[in-house]
Amino acid sequence: MGKKHVAIGIDIGGTNTVFGIVDKEGNFLAEGKIKTRDYDEIEVYLAALNEKVRLELRKLNEKVDVFGIGIGAPMGNINKGTIEYAADLPWKGIIPLADLFKQFTTLPVTVTNDANAAAIGEMIYGGAKGMKNFVVITLGTGLGSGFVVNGELVYGNDGFAGEIGHTSIRPGESNRQCACGRKGCLETYVSATGIKRTVFKLLGDMIDDSPLRDLSFNELTASDISEAAKKGDKVAMAAFEHTGRMLGYKLADVVAHTNPEAIFLFGGLTLSGDLIFEPARRHMEQNLLEIYKGKVKLLPSKLNTQNAAVLGASALVWNHHDNNKK
Amino acid sequence: MGKKHVAIGIDIGGTNTVFGIVDKEGNFLAEGKIKTRDYDEIEVYLAALNEKVRLELRKLNEKVDVFGIGIGAPMGNINKGTIEYAADLPWKGIIPLADLFKQFTTLPVTVTNDANAAAIGEMIYGGAKGMKNFVVITLGTGLGSGFVVNGELVYGNDGFAGEIGHTSIRPGESNRQCACGRKGCLETYVSATGIKRTVFKLLGDMIDDSPLRDLSFNELTASDISEAAKKGDKVAMAAFEHTGRMLGYKLADVVAHTNPEAIFLFGGLTLSGDLIFEPARRHMEQNLLEIYKGKVKLLPSKLNTQNAAVLGASALVWNHHDNNKK
Repeated sequence: MGKKHVAIGIDIGGTNTVFGIVDKEGNFLAEGKIKTRDYDEIEVYLAALNEKVRLELRKLNEKVDVFGIGIGAPMGNINKGTIEYAADLPWKGIIPLADLFKQFTTLPVTVTNDANAAAIGEMIYGGAKGMKNFVVITLGTGLGSGFVVNGELVYGNDGFAGEIGHTSIRPGESNRQCACGRKGCLETYVSATGIKRTVFKLLGDMIDDSPLRDLSFNELTASDISEAAKKGDKVAMAAFEHTGRMLGYKLADVVAHTNPEAIFLFGGLTLSGDLIFEPARRHMEQNLLEIYKGKVKLLPSKLNTQNAAVLGASALVWNHHDNNKK
Repeated sequence: MGKKHVAIGIDIGGTNTVFGIVDKEGNFLAEGKIKTRDYDEIEVYLAALNEKVRLELRKLNEKVDVFGIGIGAPMGNINKGTIEYAADLPWKGIIPLADLFKQFTTLPVTVTNDANAAAIGEMIYGGAKGMKNFVVITLGTGLGSGFVVNGELVYGNDGFAGEIGHTSIRPGESNRQCACGRKGCLETYVSATGIKRTVFKLLGDMIDDSPLRDLSFNELTASDISEAAKKGDKVAMAAFEHTGRMLGYKLADVVAHTNPEAIFLFGGLTLSGDLIFEPARRHMEQNLLEIYKGKVKLLPSKLNTQNAAVLGASALVWNHHDNNKK
């Protein structure tokens, strides 16, 4: 019997870096993580990460044949194998990630942004199987997006397509500062951080009692808001309505640009279910041209598990491998 | 010597329908037009149009071999060969255009929206030759758009991609009514009609003398505004600044979605040159994420001639023909 074909998927997040050794069916043979934030220097970080991956590979010893490494990272650029100006990572400027990996491995390394990785994961393992036109939106600390058109991921001319998190809700009018240096970006409203910011503004505007009044900004989490909303807390419910509205506005733009079959929402905030989906869908529909109304599905990602981002990153390897065979 | 291969390109506009018999190099062997507005019934219109085309073909008699008919029309749908709910045309609801053509011809008929036709024309004959990722925006009575991604036109799941004219500048806040039934759509600001509306609002807000104060709304044209602006008229200049700003805001969204190499502006309003390009470019750049700044070209279409829309429609035939050969 031949060796099992596997890919190494790596998801680089602001807090943790998670990796997995994954077969073509999406099964995890091994996994592990290191703390991204512990490493101010990229070289030290990569040495630690590669050591950890090597250990896991050694445990699987002769049983696997590794096809490549797929990496999802904020501002990951597929054309250049770089991470560029990622606000949430410890390393500033342009990081030549794929090149730096060459010190540690001869395997092909593919880098893309985390939302593009999620979109490929959704296409290969998730709810977008068989779809040719769809969009995945990831809601985490920030908001990322990956567009698939005519069955292919949209990278764009510079490798940076899919940043709807940095389109503006009301250009020139919002005061809400974004980590990118501008104001009013969608992710300042629609993300785990965004909904917290909205709650704090609503706590200022509204006079209703709320358990959220006992928490500091740094204490409050998106799941506190979700729990409160489920119990009927007016501030939390208003925050979800507002978040869904901002998202719905921008989803309408996505539809008018690329007319997808479905839009998938991915990430922690989507676990709040209809609290976010219902207002997002309603405001999207209200802002759609007649020809689009009722046609675009707004769905939860089918990869909403802890390992989804790693799965998406590993799928990059197969996507890359299969495209090269064409 | 064999017969010359030609396509029939038809551009259906709200006022006129223009057609051409065009060879593969984009040369016009014949052309003609009929008044769209004169025909309340689609069947009578099509009979008249086909009769006119047949006459021109007869003049060329045995010298051409017609490969097909390409039609650009507002709300044209490539999947179904229909025109659906086009606000500017005399025929309401869903018009099965390609099917209706079968009464008159056995040639293959391809229908798409006018901006998609312009994008294909730009790719085959214009400034987008060799580009894989670009967007064409047509500025006429309304505002249309055609997206090309990975070398292919984006039609989307329902055949209706590329309607940035109906994305909202400030969702839920604008009072400017759109023919589509909603408010604040981009085309209510950025189009020949849009800039007129802006001039009239500015004539109310400002106290500067202006020759534009002598014209009624129905008299005023976009070229009056352009001429006045070139002479330093403050109201006209403010109108162009405002129009460019609204366009720039939405171009920034286009870049964040699909990261094109270039965006081409097409149509009458672009003849005003820097009056529209300079503010559009400035506001686009101001609203771009760092990674995109200075990278996306904003260019005038190279098809800015009277026959460009027909050329684009004829290019549909070759695009369709070449794709079927693959």
